[in-house]
Amino acid sequence: MKTFTPSYLKEFTEKVFVEFGIPEYHARIASGILALSDIRGIDSHGVARLYSYAGLLSEGRINPNPKIEIIREKKSVCTVDGDNGLGLVVGHYANLIAIEKAKTFGSGWVSVFNTNHFGIAGYYVLEALKHDMIGWAMTNSTKLVAPLWGAERMLGTNPIAIAFPGLEEPPIVIDLATSAAAFGKIEIAMRADSNIPEGWIINKDGVTTTYPKDMIDGGALLPLGSTREAGGHKGYALASMVDILTAVLSGANWGPFAPPFALRQEIPERSVGKGIGHFFGAMEIDGFMEVDEFKKRIDDWISVMRNTKSVEGKQVVIPGDPEREEEIIRSKNGIPLSDKVVEDLRAISAMTGVPFEAD
Amino acid sequence: MKTFTPSYLKEFTEKVFVEFGIPEYHARIASGILALSDIRGIDSHGVARLYSYAGLLSEGRINPNPKIEIIREKKSVCTVDGDNGLGLVVGHYANLIAIEKAKTFGSGWVSVFNTNHFGIAGYYVLEALKHDMIGWAMTNSTKLVAPLWGAERMLGTNPIAIAFPGLEEPPIVIDLATSAAAFGKIEIAMRADSNIPEGWIINKDGVTTTYPKDMIDGGALLPLGSTREAGGHKGYALASMVDILTAVLSGANWGPFAPPFALRQEIPERSVGKGIGHFFGAMEIDGFMEVDEFKKRIDDWISVMRNTKSVEGKQVVIPGDPEREEEIIRSKNGIPLSDKVVEDLRAISAMTGVPFEAD
Repeated sequence: MKTFTPSYLKEFTEKVFVEFGIPEYHARIASGILALSDIRGIDSHGVARLYSYAGLLSEGRINPNPKIEIIREKKSVCTVDGDNGLGLVVGHYANLIAIEKAKTFGSGWVSVFNTNHFGIAGYYVLEALKHDMIGWAMTNSTKLVAPLWGAERMLGTNPIAIAFPGLEEPPIVIDLATSAAAFGKIEIAMRADSNIPEGWIINKDGVTTTYPKDMIDGGALLPLGSTREAGGHKGYALASMVDILTAVLSGANWGPFAPPFALRQEIPERSVGKGIGHFFGAMEIDGFMEVDEFKKRIDDWISVMRNTKSVEGKQVVIPGDPEREEEIIRSKNGIPLSDKVVEDLRAISAMTGVPFEAD
Repeated sequence: MKTFTPSYLKEFTEKVFVEFGIPEYHARIASGILALSDIRGIDSHGVARLYSYAGLLSEGRINPNPKIEIIREKKSVCTVDGDNGLGLVVGHYANLIAIEKAKTFGSGWVSVFNTNHFGIAGYYVLEALKHDMIGWAMTNSTKLVAPLWGAERMLGTNPIAIAFPGLEEPPIVIDLATSAAAFGKIEIAMRADSNIPEGWIINKDGVTTTYPKDMIDGGALLPLGSTREAGGHKGYALASMVDILTAVLSGANWGPFAPPFALRQEIPERSVGKGIGHFFGAMEIDGFMEVDEFKKRIDDWISVMRNTKSVEGKQVVIPGDPEREEEIIRSKNGIPLSDKVVEDLRAISAMTGVPFEAD
């Protein structure tokens, strides 16, 4: 483990993006989103992903200078063509379109196609908060999850994010994948050679298993709820909802046809659209209620939930708490990166000529 | 078990509502929603609930003739005061407001307070389909669910519904409670004196239990995902999202303060608004994509998902399939009602003078 300041990593990332022909103002946005992820403790979506972005950029599989445009609209709703740009950039601008629409029409809803991995969904909903709006963000992604009773990967981990501002309290930030567990947890167990809990994955025959290696051997993640008995059909339905709003509605590749987010991964046999898809929403709080009254009600809600009688030794957590606590720690102590990630960043440095660790 | 034709039950329900002073055109809507629930096989939300509605109406706790109105709006968004009407009626009209707004602004979003139990969320999203719109419906409800790591009931089973139309295929209809299991399943196990699976409920100390009686003795339902390991924090976050959009944003009672939907249930110690809350959305498909193109893409999606390689002896189901299959059966064979429900309907008949079973 090595530790870096957030600003050092952000600057490195920005320069790398610029080396790949991304305009500086786009590189600034994209590196900011990856840095936010690292600061908030979501290691899987931060600078650890730069190697994948760099790989796709170097192979010309992401357009470094996209022309992002609305191709169809009706007042509060529209479809945006991301022109195969970095998802971080396309997502940022499409989300701004939702926010602008909300200023004019009370709400704005944007379905996006021809785009790529957009980082943490939480970033976009935090942006909406700056405008006293309730923000929504979803994206589809490479297949990893089996529908309930399925025995193969058909859907991505398809996250849903939404945030609500408090007045004195920090905002409630919901950002969840619709799978039971993250793929990263399976990888960690595999490296540690340890078993995983029931309910996370199935093997290639669709049977639940506690051996992480079964995931690699043709297995799949289970949707949130895991089994029929515990509500796995609900997680599957939520993942489907995200897939349809982001990809079917926009004209992107849906379900098992979402392109992979890395080199050397299998390209889907069929193309049913362009790129992957996102979906953004923004609603003006003021259109429903006085903004400060809403924020006071959120403060009250947070305080009541936090004070729930709890299981011994535990406390009820408000969505967004863990990330905010991590943010305080990492802003002070820096971002710890695994040897593997540091090695990747060195490789990117060698590839691009952008210095890393003053080497 | 006795079996009744859907139209017989619908007529009886309608006349009962009229007896309680509900205008005929409102009674028609309300009885139609309960009948739809019975036809689609969702017994818990159909005529079995008439006893609760009748009880609350007879005690004057529901306003039979509400003046439903928009109290604040900004183009595509608004807040509606349900004037303490039947949730079935308030929900119907608030949903129509969302649909009307979508005709004008591309989308419509309505948060509702001062309302009551609205039946199946699926009804509202099916209405939006008639206008080639994607409909959303949510409601909060009486506390039954513990937040993750909580040891008491703080949230309702807070359902989320959304539907997408196919061209040749029937629509995808998603309608799910954000708890791991329905309260009705606990009641069934209690009556059968059988154990329930791990992950459905906790006892009064917040410990997971397989004894259904623990639910009654101060226990609570677990959110979708059940445990931290299997994603219980996600189900809790989804239930929170619904609670905030429906009740915090509208001015209704949120979280543990949602009033009960039955006589003889404990009234919450605090009031933080009026009634319970709903949230409806409608989006014009045409604002994103040619309607027929979208429907064809949905057909393709359905066919691909249905043909997922599956677990032996099972097939992947499309959300909405089970209810539609039940609809075909029950439209032909009638609605089976338990002795308990028939007894309740007889009691309502005695109370109102509306004949039941020609007695």
